[in-house]
Amino acid sequence: MADAAVIPAVKETQAALATSFIKCLVRLLRAQDSYGSWEGKPDTELLADFIVTKEQRREIPIIGDPDPDVLWRLDIYYAAVGLAIEERAGLMASPIMNIGHEGFGRVLLTAGRLVVLSKTLRDVHRFGFESFQKLAEAGTRLVDDAIAAMETYPDAARA
Amino acid sequence: MADAAVIPAVKETQAALATSFIKCLVRLLRAQDSYGSWEGKPDTELLADFIVTKEQRREIPIIGDPDPDVLWRLDIYYAAVGLAIEERAGLMASPIMNIGHEGFGRVLLTAGRLVVLSKTLRDVHRFGFESFQKLAEAGTRLVDDAIAAMETYPDAARA
Repeated sequence: MADAAVIPAVKETQAALATSFIKCLVRLLRAQDSYGSWEGKPDTELLADFIVTKEQRREIPIIGDPDPDVLWRLDIYYAAVGLAIEERAGLMASPIMNIGHEGFGRVLLTAGRLVVLSKTLRDVHRFGFESFQKLAEAGTRLVDDAIAAMETYPDAARA
Repeated sequence: MADAAVIPAVKETQAALATSFIKCLVRLLRAQDSYGSWEGKPDTELLADFIVTKEQRREIPIIGDPDPDVLWRLDIYYAAVGLAIEERAGLMASPIMNIGHEGFGRVLLTAGRLVVLSKTLRDVHRFGFESFQKLAEAGTRLVDDAIAAMETYPDAARA
């Protein structure tokens, strides 16, 4: 009986890992592995820290500076959004991020003169997604929105 | 004979102080003065730290983290550019800045979906201008460029 529940979850994870956004994310993570110490690790293990369940979220205090590891993951996440945009649109999208000590901030992705993504960040301490599927969906949505903006304002994007 | 050299300099300073950019800068500086302790101070005194002569520049080391006061001045400077843009164009331009520990960074000003200003910052430790005139000219030029970008891409700016 347990299998019946597990198999869809495995399929969902496989589908998530196959998205171009997650592929970009994994590529950027592996690029950080200068010494090849993660070579034997599967993608799911590299991505594991991006998964934060509701219970885990609640346990993370939002007082004090966000953990440097969280900030690192946030950087990689938005860099992956930028990379996935570039793959699809052929235009570089570069991120700029500003996080205050309270874990509150702002991230922008720009292509040419166009802001393709602008997001206010809150509770950065708790940055994470409930599942690989949610991670893939969230990233893909950002990429889709950015591409749509580029299509609406092509001149500014190519400026 | 000394007067002949001084008078044009005074006139230049007065002209600089009358520009809308410097007025915005002074307004933002005075807004920081919660206790009214700068009330008796003339504008030139409030702006004095923005003036860094060539000799002074050379003496400022560019090793280590930039001074928090310099970062504060940098913030106010770009906020003033944003405010001056808003005054002229009627559209809010909000800055986002990212400075690394090496005093190297990037600043963006955006209006709607348009990047109205994008600048790479270097040697932030030495941020400053040779004279009030140079300060006014540099700020005004940034404002002019931003307004020109808004005129070129009005839809993105109003998005």
